[in-house]
Amino acid sequence: MNQRKVPDVVIRRLPLYLRTLEILDPDEAPIISSEQLAKLVGTSSGQVRKDLSYFGVFGKQGVGYQIISMRMELRRILKLDQEIRVGLIGAGNLGAALVRYHQKNRVHQPLEIVALFDVDDKKIGRKIADVEVFDIGKLSSIIRNLDIKMMILTFPAANVQQVVDICIASGVKSFLNFVPVSLKVPAEVKLRTSDVTLELQSLAYYT
Amino acid sequence: MNQRKVPDVVIRRLPLYLRTLEILDPDEAPIISSEQLAKLVGTSSGQVRKDLSYFGVFGKQGVGYQIISMRMELRRILKLDQEIRVGLIGAGNLGAALVRYHQKNRVHQPLEIVALFDVDDKKIGRKIADVEVFDIGKLSSIIRNLDIKMMILTFPAANVQQVVDICIASGVKSFLNFVPVSLKVPAEVKLRTSDVTLELQSLAYYT
Repeated sequence: MNQRKVPDVVIRRLPLYLRTLEILDPDEAPIISSEQLAKLVGTSSGQVRKDLSYFGVFGKQGVGYQIISMRMELRRILKLDQEIRVGLIGAGNLGAALVRYHQKNRVHQPLEIVALFDVDDKKIGRKIADVEVFDIGKLSSIIRNLDIKMMILTFPAANVQQVVDICIASGVKSFLNFVPVSLKVPAEVKLRTSDVTLELQSLAYYT
Repeated sequence: MNQRKVPDVVIRRLPLYLRTLEILDPDEAPIISSEQLAKLVGTSSGQVRKDLSYFGVFGKQGVGYQIISMRMELRRILKLDQEIRVGLIGAGNLGAALVRYHQKNRVHQPLEIVALFDVDDKKIGRKIADVEVFDIGKLSSIIRNLDIKMMILTFPAANVQQVVDICIASGVKSFLNFVPVSLKVPAEVKLRTSDVTLELQSLAYYT
């Protein structure tokens, strides 16, 4: 794709642009200006133009962006033009809530949660929102068999790093981590941690 | 406090430093170098020193940081040296999971979830992890009576902006938002949005 290395903060804004473009009706107005898009997303038009410039020119100066072709382009850049299979480790309260939430909101996105993993015999073999819970002992073989490329971590355990290492060795390329621990991944793997407690603690600063 | 305006990315790293310092045992070693702290947190020593420099000098050149006094200082900066009362709107799967997770992990943090809010008559009056679910119609009076300064939003509804406006008028200073909508808040109020679907979509880029 001959791209410059794109900062992660830019990558994180692309789904926001995509979501906004998917809400708009191109039959009403097929073109949107960077000013309009920026206003809907809650950023500046300069930011929009700079973000998109990483991937080549989308819009024409003074004309704006074609909504339909820009949607397709953003899906292609984000690799959302193909199915991506996602696993989730930890079928507890948070894990179950995330699966249900995701299933309810998965219109227009090809990210499919295809397997849950847990250590609890009472959960293994059951389904949550139509997704089966597998024995975590079968992690490696299920990842390979189902071609899972992304893993969500929601289990509070001491051996998270070991589990992450197995995932990577089995083909997982990116992680969304809700476990409050520091994890190490190689440079070619992406790990993003979402920690509600840390979020609340940093928001305390603003109270 | 005579501070420069501190970037939000810096504020977001402070709880990570605090958590790391709270894991360490000062009886074993009372002082930590910026290199050691950086390694434990997963950043660089330059970043640590720069982040902390916003709040005045903590460590002595070539000596390091006093673990106990630095913990206290970080708690003071983050306003975690006082109780902060938190509300949560939307007592569904995600809301319930967040409350349970927070209650289980609230050691050493004075953030207390004191009220849940919902529209569902079947939920109102019940308790989740010892926290009562109130009628959202009483939002304003409960916020004032319980002195709630922070609100977590987990409900999928059309009128989220209206609910946010009521919260702000009643004294809420910061929001952690899990609802996938764009919200507007005045400059003196902090809103942070955590959207699992957007996170997964941006992680697709790395698969």
